[in-house]
Amino acid sequence: MNEYDIIDLLTRTAGRLPVGYSPIGDDVALIPATGAKLVLKADMLVGRTDVPPGMTWRQAGRKAVAMCVSDFAAKGVAPLVMMVSLGMPRRLADDDIRAIARGFRDAMDEWSLNLIGGDTNEADDVIVDCIVAGFGNRIVERKGARPGDLVVVTGEFGTTSAGLKILLANAHASARFRRRALHNVYKPSPNLKAGLALKGFLSSAMDSSDGLAICLHSLCEASDVGIRLERLPYTRPLEEFASDNHYTVEELTLYGGEEYEIVGTVPKGRIREAEAAAKAAGSQLMVVGRVTRASGVMMSDGRVVEKRGWIQLN
Amino acid sequence: MNEYDIIDLLTRTAGRLPVGYSPIGDDVALIPATGAKLVLKADMLVGRTDVPPGMTWRQAGRKAVAMCVSDFAAKGVAPLVMMVSLGMPRRLADDDIRAIARGFRDAMDEWSLNLIGGDTNEADDVIVDCIVAGFGNRIVERKGARPGDLVVVTGEFGTTSAGLKILLANAHASARFRRRALHNVYKPSPNLKAGLALKGFLSSAMDSSDGLAICLHSLCEASDVGIRLERLPYTRPLEEFASDNHYTVEELTLYGGEEYEIVGTVPKGRIREAEAAAKAAGSQLMVVGRVTRASGVMMSDGRVVEKRGWIQLN
Repeated sequence: MNEYDIIDLLTRTAGRLPVGYSPIGDDVALIPATGAKLVLKADMLVGRTDVPPGMTWRQAGRKAVAMCVSDFAAKGVAPLVMMVSLGMPRRLADDDIRAIARGFRDAMDEWSLNLIGGDTNEADDVIVDCIVAGFGNRIVERKGARPGDLVVVTGEFGTTSAGLKILLANAHASARFRRRALHNVYKPSPNLKAGLALKGFLSSAMDSSDGLAICLHSLCEASDVGIRLERLPYTRPLEEFASDNHYTVEELTLYGGEEYEIVGTVPKGRIREAEAAAKAAGSQLMVVGRVTRASGVMMSDGRVVEKRGWIQLN
Repeated sequence: MNEYDIIDLLTRTAGRLPVGYSPIGDDVALIPATGAKLVLKADMLVGRTDVPPGMTWRQAGRKAVAMCVSDFAAKGVAPLVMMVSLGMPRRLADDDIRAIARGFRDAMDEWSLNLIGGDTNEADDVIVDCIVAGFGNRIVERKGARPGDLVVVTGEFGTTSAGLKILLANAHASARFRRRALHNVYKPSPNLKAGLALKGFLSSAMDSSDGLAICLHSLCEASDVGIRLERLPYTRPLEEFASDNHYTVEELTLYGGEEYEIVGTVPKGRIREAEAAAKAAGSQLMVVGRVTRASGVMMSDGRVVEKRGWIQLN
């Protein structure tokens, strides 16, 4: 496929756009502003580092969008439209390009997004820069946590990291755990519904894809507070996986990355309401610690949580 | 520099943001919507194909933004903010990364843009996906040309193409022409002021960076009309360059690409006003042909202008 064929493919993927939207294929996209403020995010998927072995191109296309949707979830804003800037190696088969576009379609259907434009280029590796826009009045910022607030997460950590160890370091796992861990790797699922439902309760929040430790440190720095981590949000099967493979659950849970959960803080008096809101949105909310007047992130036994994370797949 | 150092650099490059903008460094950017409709564009610069020999990284950073600004110019909309998604090879020197950021700063100053966010990744080649947003009520579309309208361009064509032939094919040129041609290659200058001034006069328009021939064909297809090209917008020095190097001026002017001019159509009765508006904006407007009821693009001697263009630097 040449550049024009790919633009045609994106145009077909976009389908019919809502009234008031400019059709795909002009020099720029034009859509009605449906709120007082524009919310904008761009996140680049790079084949070599973001597409692990065994991930299909369709899954990769979906993941590129999921990476952005996860940020909207954490900020409590509904994403509205997406654009994609593509870099494609000449050797990439036409079917693979079509699979990437099907992955965009999956994401569009899953999170009710319209594709409003794109750009395509030749590059050495598959590059999908996904741009998502929405409108709202405010976002849940990273800043805003106050001493006494509870630290919450919307899901477990460490399983995706285990999945990457299975794929990249030949770690052993039961068939069941392997299935679950690889599902997490191949099909990241940002909690958009939960994020929108939690917006009114979160005093601060961020997307966790760089890893839980980095995330907790970033929240502390933005709000000029500390965090005492009282519980690590992992499950029993992760413990077994860790012990079978001589990893520690702390390492997998805190420093793994690639989980698309919301990490945030909730004023103590509102935690029951927040838990109920998350549940009603089909998600969960786990209290894992509390905000302190100190600085930095500590476990309750006094050990320091390091500021490191993010994974390199290569 | 690691990922966090690069984000710091972008934050410093952004400087102080206007009131109502979220500070750089949260998961998403938030800015006030200042018009009824959002105008959005993303354009990816790839080192291997978009950065010719001799272009500095600072010029490449500026060019990445110019590519988007050129689309806003053609659509008659003022760009307001930019985001950048970066892919950086590990081998790239820190000074080169800083130079790219200085190029962003140059573009921000030149076109009054605020940098509101970014993303950074490791990649095999330098990738700068520039995203530009603005607000307006409407755009000048590619569609809208009517038979009888005059076809106009805001500048000359072919010189940039000559510059690329000098750089990539050892073409000969006088010192003076060489200087001018390389300036066009290294410092593309979209006519933003002219684009904004011409908005009310253009019945259709587009950015010419894929080449004049492609551009004329795209306008014809969007409006379901034909174009008779009566004059090629090249200058005398290009003729000399072409004859010295056994190129044809037609080839250089029509099929070269990389010019960042506006190509559009103006109703005949408004051409004087449009010319005056372009002049007042420090630009020019050349009439190169007229819109017909036929289909396709033809020279006045009956030769067909082919639908091909865009260059590959490698």
